Amino acid sequence: MYDLAGADPLLRFSPYCWRTRMALAHKGLDVETVPWRFTDKDAIAFSGQTRVPVLVDGEKAISDSWDIACYLDAAYADRRALFGSADAKGAALFIKRWCEGQLHPALVRLIVADIVKVIDPKDVAYFRESREKALGATLEDYCAAKAENLKHLHAVLAPLRFTVKDQPFIGGDEGPAYSDYIVFGALQWARCSSPQDLLAEDDPVAAWFDRLLNLYGGLGAKAPRPQVR
Amino acid sequence: MYDLAGADPLLRFSPYCWRTRMALAHKGLDVETVPWRFTDKDAIAFSGQTRVPVLVDGEKAISDSWDIACYLDAAYADRRALFGSADAKGAALFIKRWCEGQLHPALVRLIVADIVKVIDPKDVAYFRESREKALGATLEDYCAAKAENLKHLHAVLAPLRFTVKDQPFIGGDEGPAYSDYIVFGALQWARCSSPQDLLAEDDPVAAWFDRLLNLYGGLGAKAPRPQVR
Repeated sequence: MYDLAGADPLLRFSPYCWRTRMALAHKGLDVETVPWRFTDKDAIAFSGQTRVPVLVDGEKAISDSWDIACYLDAAYADRRALFGSADAKGAALFIKRWCEGQLHPALVRLIVADIVKVIDPKDVAYFRESREKALGATLEDYCAAKAENLKHLHAVLAPLRFTVKDQPFIGGDEGPAYSDYIVFGALQWARCSSPQDLLAEDDPVAAWFDRLLNLYGGLGAKAPRPQVR
Repeated sequence: MYDLAGADPLLRFSPYCWRTRMALAHKGLDVETVPWRFTDKDAIAFSGQTRVPVLVDGEKAISDSWDIACYLDAAYADRRALFGSADAKGAALFIKRWCEGQLHPALVRLIVADIVKVIDPKDVAYFRESREKALGATLEDYCAAKAENLKHLHAVLAPLRFTVKDQPFIGGDEGPAYSDYIVFGALQWARCSSPQDLLAEDDPVAAWFDRLLNLYGGLGAKAPRPQVR
């Protein structure tokens, strides 16, 4: 699996790659990750597109974290399902849309100026230029209103908060499902690219995130965080 | 089933009762509805609480639309499931939290001053007082900024829009599931209590809502709307 890495090759922070790491662990599948940087377009050209994750499974190359999840459930149907039913997959798509449309933008407001400090030096110019153009501001200006941005993040998390207050996982009482990994990926992206702690300790979201961090031998918890500097 | 009604007993607009009407139809179960008004607390005292829907099934009385859905899947397990799996139910709870926390408040901003015009005269004082106290404004003032409130509604609907642009139902390609009925209830609440048309014709949400309206012999589509006055 080609996995976005920082200047430190052990620092892995792509929200989409984290979805796939967790999905592979959920299925009980071993994986070798290959560190990849934003500007390494040639390394994944074989996949016919320019983004990670890219999963190579034998002769097959699959890109896009959603397509990879669907592939894993189809190709490894005898292992624990990521989607327990057709309507679980349908609802997971809603949660994906919520996550990418509401949660990711709220996190960008808080962490994008930290991300530029941890990425590989060869990626910095590309990252800063492309993001500043898209955001219409310097990364630092975009993140300036910290208290307000944090308040917005906590408001955005409300549907998740009230869900995991009543049940241990988005997937319900019986265990996590792909919906959990979608949202986990977003918060793990922040955790592995920024030294900020964004969740209040007494927030049910923090307890849920801890549960996810500690799954699969602490796969998420053991992932390095950036040094505070 | 005790079902919230307006001054016109055929006008049924509770979002929670609509969830249950659709859930019963999904299971292929016939139901007799009993018109109920906000102030008819005595009529449902037997259920041990004060809100509708209340479903009476033989000797059993079940209240709360979510509990009714869980009951129906357990008691009528041989019929089409409302939740196809444990993780589908878990994700449906997330969608319920999103619906009640984001979509309902956005709709209240648009329709609460219309609702007071269609409810039974005996409910008006109770409804106006309790809602104006909760909202901190007269119903009319609360709904005054129509264009802005409509813009907010359309922004809130984004996760639903991008979901049903890619698949016919929240429940996926194979058909609707309880998640669809949760969100349908919200929009049907607006449709059956307000003469306003809140969705743009070219919005994928409108096409999805039409699909839901036309299920089960047009159960939703045939429901009376209030007269424009």
